[in-house]
Amino acid sequence: MTPQELEQQIRSKKSFLCIGLDTDLDKIPAFLREQPDPLFAFNKAIIDATHQLCVAYKPNTAFYEAYGSEGWRSLEKTIAYLNEKYPQIFTIADAKRGDIGNTSTRYAKAFFETMDFDALTVAPYMGRDSVEPFLEFEGKYTILLGLTSNPGAFDFQTREDAGVRLFEQVLKTASNYRHSERLMYVVGATKAEYLRDIRKIIPEAFLLIPGVGAQGGSLEEVCRYGLNEGVGLLINSSRGIIYASAEQDFAEKAAQKARALQTQMAKILEKG
Amino acid sequence: MTPQELEQQIRSKKSFLCIGLDTDLDKIPAFLREQPDPLFAFNKAIIDATHQLCVAYKPNTAFYEAYGSEGWRSLEKTIAYLNEKYPQIFTIADAKRGDIGNTSTRYAKAFFETMDFDALTVAPYMGRDSVEPFLEFEGKYTILLGLTSNPGAFDFQTREDAGVRLFEQVLKTASNYRHSERLMYVVGATKAEYLRDIRKIIPEAFLLIPGVGAQGGSLEEVCRYGLNEGVGLLINSSRGIIYASAEQDFAEKAAQKARALQTQMAKILEKG
Repeated sequence: MTPQELEQQIRSKKSFLCIGLDTDLDKIPAFLREQPDPLFAFNKAIIDATHQLCVAYKPNTAFYEAYGSEGWRSLEKTIAYLNEKYPQIFTIADAKRGDIGNTSTRYAKAFFETMDFDALTVAPYMGRDSVEPFLEFEGKYTILLGLTSNPGAFDFQTREDAGVRLFEQVLKTASNYRHSERLMYVVGATKAEYLRDIRKIIPEAFLLIPGVGAQGGSLEEVCRYGLNEGVGLLINSSRGIIYASAEQDFAEKAAQKARALQTQMAKILEKG
Repeated sequence: MTPQELEQQIRSKKSFLCIGLDTDLDKIPAFLREQPDPLFAFNKAIIDATHQLCVAYKPNTAFYEAYGSEGWRSLEKTIAYLNEKYPQIFTIADAKRGDIGNTSTRYAKAFFETMDFDALTVAPYMGRDSVEPFLEFEGKYTILLGLTSNPGAFDFQTREDAGVRLFEQVLKTASNYRHSERLMYVVGATKAEYLRDIRKIIPEAFLLIPGVGAQGGSLEEVCRYGLNEGVGLLINSSRGIIYASAEQDFAEKAAQKARALQTQMAKILEKG
């Protein structure tokens, strides 16, 4: 999928919503736990109920790995289902991987080939030769951590060197990596005012924005500073949508929550 | 396992060698590929041949994930074998994970409980609340990326703020995290002279040192600056040992390579 195709999907669905599949056995409806694969059964129901309201799904690998190879199989079934049933959906493995050269290539194979995700989140700490192996994969997108939405973001990401904060340096440096046109960035919504500075450095790239809602960010604020001509935003919501109810109506209630966000997004897109 | 028990094992084996299990189907002996689980078969043979020469094994998760849930099962079998057959060995999952609070806890469960590794490598970019969830696990060790051994390390890790480089700030800040006594650090051997500065910040912590041999670091240099009273070093070698031969004698040849390093280490430990 190209960023242009992603934009087309956004304009046709009037939504730039990404739904995070942080699927946790302790939080899904109790009756699903009797299924042979409860994680997949939950994901399938959520996806079937919400796929017209969002343009992307983002399973976070931690929630699957916690259940070992069985959890990993549930993740494989989820991505296979998405690719078969809803091939136009943009799929993101939120894995925050990164390692030296040949090892990053193995991670890229795991997520871009073995599982065929469209995109993968990657941590920048190890620099160029830990990121570029991911960028070698045509038609695939590497979503680099820029400024994250958690309190610990201020430990290192906002440190300054000659007036440039670390997260700004990450964006600047990464823009010069080979195939940087395949980069997107994670930018936390809890600091919407930083988005103005970020857009000066990377005006065109798509930004994946966690932290709207549960973590306190405002959708209006984020869009004021973050929207660009190609939309350029994917707003993620996980728990606020998928755990709206733990009863029989969980998928329906998730769709209601997703629709509430989608309706706000439609208005924002109309205003331009 | 406590750091004191790790030191005892080091002194009794006269070795502070960690063997990296970066197991790649394309590099293991061809005849093993006919086995039902070639990755595990290879690891088992390497472990059985080398366990008296090293104190730790470090599978890198990228190599297993590249084969999907099947690869993840090979990893599970490897750690289960180590824990059952050689329980005194220190086991490290080289996974370079890290995410916001509750998500880091899921990763910790995956590696410290579901698989029961002794230690896990973690990336520091997201700060305190991405690292502390791992430190909550008693008897488990979080090995934080400090200064890595790849060329990209200079993209961000050596940036200065008020005369303090980022990797130094990571060590200083992390030393104040809750349960920082459960921290160890990854420090690349290609910059042995930095080890002197690093030991000023974290004199007591164990350091996991990749990059000796293949990546150009010198064992003598590393030990000159890095050894402390409790030894405090784990030197990792992966490809240099496990791929010493692709024939029937692969495990024996791996043991020879491991013994060569162990012999050097014994001399260094004798000199004190």
